[in-house]
Amino acid sequence: MRILVINCGSSSLKVGIFEIDGPQATETFKATYDRFEQGRCSYKIVYGGKSDAGDAPYADISTALMALPAIFAEHEIGAFNAVGHRIVHGGERFRISTILDAKMIDTIESLTPLAPLHNPANLLAVRIATEVWPGLPQVAVFDTAFHATNPPRATTYAVPKAWREAGLRRFGFHGTSHKYVAFRAAEEIGEPLRDLRIVSVHLGNGASVCAINRGESIDTSMGMTPIEGLVMGTRSGDVDPGLFGFLARQFGLAIGQIEHALYNESGLKGLTGSSDMRTVEDRAASGEADSQLAIEIFAYRTRKYIGAYAAAMGGLDAVVFTGGIGENSASMRRRICDGLEFMGLRLDHDRNQSVDLGGHAAPQIQAYGSRVRVIVTETAEQLMIARETAVALAGKAPAMDTIPVAVSARHVHLSRGAVDALFGAGYQLTQSAPLRQPGQWAAAERLTLEGPKGQIDRVAILGPERKRTQIEISRTDGFALGIDPPVRDSGKLEGTPIVRLIGPVGNLDTDGLIIAARHIHTNPHDAARLGLTDGMIVDVHIGDEERGLVFGKTMIRVGPDSLTEMHIDTDEANAADIRFQAEGSLVPGLRAVAVATDEP
Amino acid sequence: MRILVINCGSSSLKVGIFEIDGPQATETFKATYDRFEQGRCSYKIVYGGKSDAGDAPYADISTALMALPAIFAEHEIGAFNAVGHRIVHGGERFRISTILDAKMIDTIESLTPLAPLHNPANLLAVRIATEVWPGLPQVAVFDTAFHATNPPRATTYAVPKAWREAGLRRFGFHGTSHKYVAFRAAEEIGEPLRDLRIVSVHLGNGASVCAINRGESIDTSMGMTPIEGLVMGTRSGDVDPGLFGFLARQFGLAIGQIEHALYNESGLKGLTGSSDMRTVEDRAASGEADSQLAIEIFAYRTRKYIGAYAAAMGGLDAVVFTGGIGENSASMRRRICDGLEFMGLRLDHDRNQSVDLGGHAAPQIQAYGSRVRVIVTETAEQLMIARETAVALAGKAPAMDTIPVAVSARHVHLSRGAVDALFGAGYQLTQSAPLRQPGQWAAAERLTLEGPKGQIDRVAILGPERKRTQIEISRTDGFALGIDPPVRDSGKLEGTPIVRLIGPVGNLDTDGLIIAARHIHTNPHDAARLGLTDGMIVDVHIGDEERGLVFGKTMIRVGPDSLTEMHIDTDEANAADIRFQAEGSLVPGLRAVAVATDEP
Repeated sequence: MRILVINCGSSSLKVGIFEIDGPQATETFKATYDRFEQGRCSYKIVYGGKSDAGDAPYADISTALMALPAIFAEHEIGAFNAVGHRIVHGGERFRISTILDAKMIDTIESLTPLAPLHNPANLLAVRIATEVWPGLPQVAVFDTAFHATNPPRATTYAVPKAWREAGLRRFGFHGTSHKYVAFRAAEEIGEPLRDLRIVSVHLGNGASVCAINRGESIDTSMGMTPIEGLVMGTRSGDVDPGLFGFLARQFGLAIGQIEHALYNESGLKGLTGSSDMRTVEDRAASGEADSQLAIEIFAYRTRKYIGAYAAAMGGLDAVVFTGGIGENSASMRRRICDGLEFMGLRLDHDRNQSVDLGGHAAPQIQAYGSRVRVIVTETAEQLMIARETAVALAGKAPAMDTIPVAVSARHVHLSRGAVDALFGAGYQLTQSAPLRQPGQWAAAERLTLEGPKGQIDRVAILGPERKRTQIEISRTDGFALGIDPPVRDSGKLEGTPIVRLIGPVGNLDTDGLIIAARHIHTNPHDAARLGLTDGMIVDVHIGDEERGLVFGKTMIRVGPDSLTEMHIDTDEANAADIRFQAEGSLVPGLRAVAVATDEP
Repeated sequence: MRILVINCGSSSLKVGIFEIDGPQATETFKATYDRFEQGRCSYKIVYGGKSDAGDAPYADISTALMALPAIFAEHEIGAFNAVGHRIVHGGERFRISTILDAKMIDTIESLTPLAPLHNPANLLAVRIATEVWPGLPQVAVFDTAFHATNPPRATTYAVPKAWREAGLRRFGFHGTSHKYVAFRAAEEIGEPLRDLRIVSVHLGNGASVCAINRGESIDTSMGMTPIEGLVMGTRSGDVDPGLFGFLARQFGLAIGQIEHALYNESGLKGLTGSSDMRTVEDRAASGEADSQLAIEIFAYRTRKYIGAYAAAMGGLDAVVFTGGIGENSASMRRRICDGLEFMGLRLDHDRNQSVDLGGHAAPQIQAYGSRVRVIVTETAEQLMIARETAVALAGKAPAMDTIPVAVSARHVHLSRGAVDALFGAGYQLTQSAPLRQPGQWAAAERLTLEGPKGQIDRVAILGPERKRTQIEISRTDGFALGIDPPVRDSGKLEGTPIVRLIGPVGNLDTDGLIIAARHIHTNPHDAARLGLTDGMIVDVHIGDEERGLVFGKTMIRVGPDSLTEMHIDTDEANAADIRFQAEGSLVPGLRAVAVATDEP
């Protein structure tokens, strides 16, 4: 499959052609056009092992785009299967890569207030490509899509409701880069992405940090716009919102003027006059105070974000550096990492010094014995856009079928030791009622949960006993107890909060408090019929058209004797307006991207 | 000494009277006036173990202030020694508590653009108190002063130079509270403040976090204004600066309208309709989704700041909770701390649940074995204002005298093992020239330093050998090497960066790279004459009136045979335009506050 990738910014155009064959992707052609002025521009083309650069007679990006077919013909490049476009802002609407139609293009256009510089340039490319290659699928790959999994606690600004309803929230950008980098790091480490807590540090002319918790972006430093977060080449990153009022009163500046300066005259450029970190580092080494301070601020902010995101994920397994500065500045990597030893991160200074990214290497540069890995890798946005485009094209629905849904009320699984402590040594729980899953039952006994905010009485106990005590509650139960439990798969209890269990004979403070991640139990026979495999993540639609919901991120668990059944908790059942029982259907294709790119 | 403390906000007035006797401070009278409307207000007075509350016929704060002398007369309270005022914004000018004169009041007034709501209210109280108690010293205690030690990397926004030159920078607030809380925590822990890395978490209607590194504030979450940082009762905390442009384009809002909403209609109020955390917690427990989300955002942001500040300090010894929410919400404390186990912080849930702050207790609530302490304490801003006022009154100059200043170029102290590795086993360094400090000498041998950015050749070696290798360089040397060394006292080498030493026989990678903290060597005789004691921190003026500088934070080191001499590094010498030698003089009084409050 041959994919044309177009990354069209406001002042430059990048083009790539990729041959995709299953997990293999090869870039066979690459072109860049920039510095458009006075009826010409600069270009660079790499093709067939040769590189060609110079001036081209294109006055603007449109003209350069229109000239592509002739260039491809000249290089004897055959027909494409699709065109993949980078679209900066997908808003709340676009959570995955999408084949575009006229209505979707209108929707993207309506997002222009959120990305006034970027989206119009991206759409220009879509429009011209549709003219030039009519009938070819045009696929949009969104910078924001990877962050669609960020929870509301990370995406919500504490501002008036009317503003939030108008769409003011955090989105995050650089998603395609952070996603690639996370996959590449997991590949290099040799562990599944879903077992890793990664901070991806993309330091280029734009710069952002992303917390990738077990494969999902849960927070990122850019917000509603690409100004928020780190110090960048010409963007300020985080500032006090009070600066608008101050500048209006002191200088009579208007919002547009301030915003323009925060985008274009701030960051390294505002601090030193140069937006190029190489220049800034050389000036700093020769003693220039402004450049020294700029480097200190740049590194300090990045280090603070790494600490913050480790706190957000409850720990850290790897830090990955990418982008021009992240890939090339050994001293900046070191400046950021020094001082993080307290969380188990130690650099190997020789490895950091001698990073070589040739042949798509992603070297590990932590010291021997460092608990946290440190990895450097090129980012590969164009490649990732090509892959996402191929996946969007292949996105076919699995066989539609319905799955029974069971609502799990709060309950507890007890260990032998817990039964002893709560009910007395050697006590045997009374089997009261069998559950649908073979061999499982509800006990006649109940117990009480206690947390800092309050108690919950008469909580069900499910048997048989387990090796480790596990308490499964809903989010609302968490607020009643005053404890914030993580969403976890059953049995994954490391680092879970402690709660007090109160039994008739004694009390027990134990960890193991979770909100059970929704999941589908199934057996090999039904799994094959439904097109599912163990560990797969799917989306499920539950309820009627009117009030139903799509539950994303539902884990498939295949067991030899399991009855096929989806388990959701009471909050989820209330949200979908389910009282007793219901059926769900797998949503065609929606999760295909995430699943497929999990195995590159 | 009897001090009247006036804390005058824009809508309320708090008054306290303190008897100060050395380190002892007792509040003997306390009054609050608020809810001014329709010609009356609410008041509460506590005096002589009795409490009295109700309505008072004061239409505004001025009237309430003017009525104070009659109330004090009625309670037979005698004359004051001074009035201490809370002033929110001291800008860059006021770094310590200060006895006010007319010129200083003008200066504070000129800072109004930085704190348009707070400073005018504070100054109203100063003006009225000057009228009512003419001749009494009026002392200003600034919310910003404790953060005057924040380094430029923390205070500088990456914005255009013209804006920074107009005064746009981070200041931080709640300083009096953070300072008190840090002292109280060190007292409770029983270790010197200068050995502790503390994150102070002040959660009230206003909320901020402060990183207190070995006694000094190095970063804090509020910035130029009190909007930046955490989610608060009605303030937004951190937002994307792009929201101004978005709201202007979507709703036609002006800067003043947006700013007003960020101050007054945001935070918990913007998210839930209520600015009171107790209400929000109760609604969340009963299942209300907006309140649940507000609590999650509030806790999540706080937890991220704790992680960020631990990264800023290179580790964490204690987290201290204060303010209405920090003192009273066990579930919020737990929600913030859960997930920080990876950095050695574990709560004891029973202790967290049963916090009792009676009798000024500051209980420790971490679990047994938790490396990080967790402490809850009342804040005591009024008490701290009274203490600072007493210290400002007592601020007498030490005897003026001059001290010789020596410029230390970069140099290395080697251990026996390091000499073996670099010069060969058993090698003896050649004594080339004696230094001024008895028994110390420079070696004839030199070596090379190497870091990720570059090398520094011909670095001096000082003898005799030490137990541990120590490399002292300047900030500029750090940029040349590409390593960011901490400023440390000689011999305090834990967690310092690794640098490569290159000798004629071999290389050695060793930690111990520091920028030597400036210090004054002296002996018991000279120390007594100068009024200095070991470990004291002083300010020293070096150079002439025109180009001289005051070097703050200079540590006194008394040794039995030391020659009295101040050591600074080459960057410091260049800054003060010192070529070969110079003399410094102790600055009268300037550091008196910091020293005195270190021993409350």
